[in-house]
Order: sequence, then structure tokens, then C-alpha cells
Amino acid sequence: MTMPTTHAFDTAISLSDNDNGHFAGHTTPEYANMVGPFGGVTAAAVVRAISRHPDRIGEPVALTVNYLAPVNDGTFDIAVRAARTNRTNQHWTAEVSQDHGPTTTATAVFGVRRDAWSDTELTMPDAPAPETLSHTTAPEMVPWMRNYDMHYVRGGLPAESEESASSTTTLWVRQRPSRVLDFPALTAISDVFYPRVFLRRGRMLPAGTISLTTYFHVDGAELAEQGTDYVLASAHAQRFARGYFDQTAQIWGRNGTLLATSHQIVYYKD
Amino acid sequence: MTMPTTHAFDTAISLSDNDNGHFAGHTTPEYANMVGPFGGVTAAAVVRAISRHPDRIGEPVALTVNYLAPVNDGTFDIAVRAARTNRTNQHWTAEVSQDHGPTTTATAVFGVRRDAWSDTELTMPDAPAPETLSHTTAPEMVPWMRNYDMHYVRGGLPAESEESASSTTTLWVRQRPSRVLDFPALTAISDVFYPRVFLRRGRMLPAGTISLTTYFHVDGAELAEQGTDYVLASAHAQRFARGYFDQTAQIWGRNGTLLATSHQIVYYKD
Repeated sequence: MTMPTTHAFDTAISLSDNDNGHFAGHTTPEYANMVGPFGGVTAAAVVRAISRHPDRIGEPVALTVNYLAPVNDGTFDIAVRAARTNRTNQHWTAEVSQDHGPTTTATAVFGVRRDAWSDTELTMPDAPAPETLSHTTAPEMVPWMRNYDMHYVRGGLPAESEESASSTTTLWVRQRPSRVLDFPALTAISDVFYPRVFLRRGRMLPAGTISLTTYFHVDGAELAEQGTDYVLASAHAQRFARGYFDQTAQIWGRNGTLLATSHQIVYYKD
Repeated sequence: MTMPTTHAFDTAISLSDNDNGHFAGHTTPEYANMVGPFGGVTAAAVVRAISRHPDRIGEPVALTVNYLAPVNDGTFDIAVRAARTNRTNQHWTAEVSQDHGPTTTATAVFGVRRDAWSDTELTMPDAPAPETLSHTTAPEMVPWMRNYDMHYVRGGLPAESEESASSTTTLWVRQRPSRVLDFPALTAISDVFYPRVFLRRGRMLPAGTISLTTYFHVDGAELAEQGTDYVLASAHAQRFARGYFDQTAQIWGRNGTLLATSHQIVYYKD
């Protein structure tokens, strides 16, 4: 007899509701990064905390997560607060903290979508089907990457000393084992790219996301239509400037739906 | 004898330090928008409040401002707090409030830049010199626009019923009267674009920024090198999705320096 098991992602973002907007979570070794947990899973936990708040209306429209300090292994508290509820949207603030103080601050906008003229102006990057591309095995020191099937179209993990003139990475990605795409999962995928400076410089160097902003372009029903399929994720940097670079990214459904656009600023030392 | 006068922008972001991280400001008619003040000037006031805090180190690296409700004419309070101070960067939260409650929340990262490999990957849009382009007279109902000299390269204010296939606007812009570019001014300019949906639909309709994120790529000295010259500002939308669209923008110095990249999500009704 096969017992249904909980997906490691659901375990990683599992929260106890401690009332008054406080949710308790626990880091898991599966989503560890080189220092602290994968930033994407922390962002996903914030989305989950807000989604579970009894006062929440609508679905995620925008999220900004600031990474103040690494989250230590162990328990953490997420405090969320509805700063304002309007007719069709709601503004949230959130703070993740541990015994040593705040580790993460965030703001979010949740909203209700309705019929309106709509259009996708961006063009989906050309990419052969994921099944025709080789799977990348995640490096040993980055445990969280093993939770994703990644098939790089271009801009894969750089070989040592191979500089690139472009910082663009495009890959097909889905959770491993497969899991239906929802807002926490899409949030985490918006941070799935290794630092752009590695690609440009052809080597790993100290780098870490300081602030991540994701805009969601679909509602839960459109997201669920993606099922467990791959999404096409593409990212590039615009400027590397004396210790900080920016990254701008798009996440596309295989059916051509632009699910999310995302931006981040990253600290680097070189 | 000519008396030196205070620039309207400096008046608009003038703050009294009320201690304990509270700063008091006052809206000014010069920076009024159709409802409440220009979002860019509110963002600029937040940057100014953090900059004036005695604990502040470094200069702006990232800023996210969420617009919860219009700021009413009159006084407002900006409460700023250093959530965490690291070796080379500092994380801030801010909240603008009035008697009726919070109107704006924000997070910011300030940091110290240092020597590191740097590169601008983005290409500056082609544009003829601002002096060769006609000046756009701001519409009567948008007072704040009169504080800027705007010379549209492409994507100017649309003529009635003229739809456009592209949401891209590129313009030369500087403060009027001229004023040396600093971080509050650059912050405000990152919100200088009229809503992209007007351009696509060829008409004005209800629209307003919900969340604005700006990444700064220069330090104060590099910024001051721009003097009072025009900057080239370019913005486009990626997706319009059932009531919310995103906008991504770049602000270039005339000398080819990418000063800032900026993103926002905008509510619209159509």
C-alpha cells in the first residue's frame, strides 16, 4: 500500500496559525541554500501566511520581500498585517523574525481580478520543448535546487572561467517531484535563477538577493490550468554597479501565458 | 536684488524631524495629481525621511513604495525604522499616515558602494537631443507635470481614440525650473510616466500605481555629475491582465549612465 506523502515544498512552507496574524514555521534541510534557506521558499512562506489570514481577500498581485539576514535553521515567526483594505485590493506588511531579530520584511498587494481589456505585450522566448533538453544536476552545495527539474535553454550554470557577454538565462523548470502550480510555488520559482554575475564572470562568487519583487498576472484558476507542467523562466541583468546588480525575469506557462514578472537587486563581491 | 527661492520640489519634500523616526510633511498644490499628490513625490519624501534619519548609513540602493490610499491635502507623518543594519547595507521600513490611517507603506535598502567589477548590459535607447524635440505642455488637470520639462521621443500623450500597439514611452525629462539631480529627484522621476494603458487604448481611463520599486545604480557623486541636465526615461508594460498591468522603466543620464531601473504595478479599469 502506498501512503500519500507530503511534498517537501508543502512541508517547507507549513505554518501554524498562532492567531493575531502570527504564523510559526520551521526551516527544512531540503530547501537549504549555501547560507540559510533558499530565498524563494521564504517568499513563498510569506505568501502562504497572508493567504491563510482570516481577513485576506483576493489573490496575490504584487510581493516585495527584503532579505535582511540569513534565516537560521529552526523555527521562525511570520507576523502579517492588513495595512489597508480597499474595494478590490488589500495591502499587507509582513515580517519574518527569529530569536536574533527580524530576518525578512515584506509588503504585498492582494486583489480581485475582473473583466477588463487585457493584452500580453511581451513575446515568449523561443525554446525547444523541455523533453528535448538535458536535465541539469544541481551542485551538491545547493540543496534546494534538487527540488526542481531544470532544463536550461541558454545560460546554464557556467563552466569554470568561461565569461559570458550576456547575463540571460532561460530554462524550463518545474517542481520535483511534480506538484500543481500555485501562488507559493510560482513565488519560489521567481527566485529560481542562480546569480547573474556568475554567468557574466564565469565563476561563483559571493552574491545574495537583497530585495525581490514579483508581480502576478493570473488568478488561481489560470494558474491551476498549468497543472504540473514545466514553466519557461527567463532572467537577465541590466546593470552591475559596484557591488549591486539588478535582475529582471519572466515566468511563462507552457501554453504561452505570462504568469509573473519579477525583479530583484542582488549584492555581489568581485 | 534677487532673493534665492526654494524650489517647489524641495518645499514638497520638506520635513520636520519629530524624533524617534517620525517626520512631518505637508502636501503642496504644485505636486497635486488628479486624486491626491503625485506618487513620485510621496516616494521622494520617504527617501528624504530615511536620508535624514541620524542612524542612516550609505545611500539608496532599492525602494519599494505601496500606495494604499490617496494622501489627502494637508499634513502627513512619515515613520521610518531601521529594521537591520549590516556591514555594507541597511534595511528600512516606512509608513506614511494621516488622521484617517496609513496611506503608504515602503521598504528601502540603503548601502555603501565599493570597487567591484561593473558593467551596463542594457543599451541606451536612441534619441535625438532634447533641444531638437518639442516641449509637451502638461494637461491642466495634472498639476505636478508642470514641474517637469518633458520632451517626448516616442509614445507621447495619446491623441483621443488613437490606439497604439506598443506601450513604450521614451522622453527627455528634467525638473522645471532646473535643479541638480539627487536621490529624491531621481526617485520622483522613476514615476514620471503617465499610465501605459492610456497609450495602448488611446484615451484616459481610471488608473493608479499600486506599488513602485526603484533600483538605484549610482552613488550620490555619480548622480551629482548629471547636474541639471535632462535624463532619458523609457518605460513599457509587459502584461495588462484583468485590472492590473506592470511597467518596467529605465532612467539614463545624458552621458549614457544607467542611473536607475524601476518597476511598478498599476490598477486600471477599462
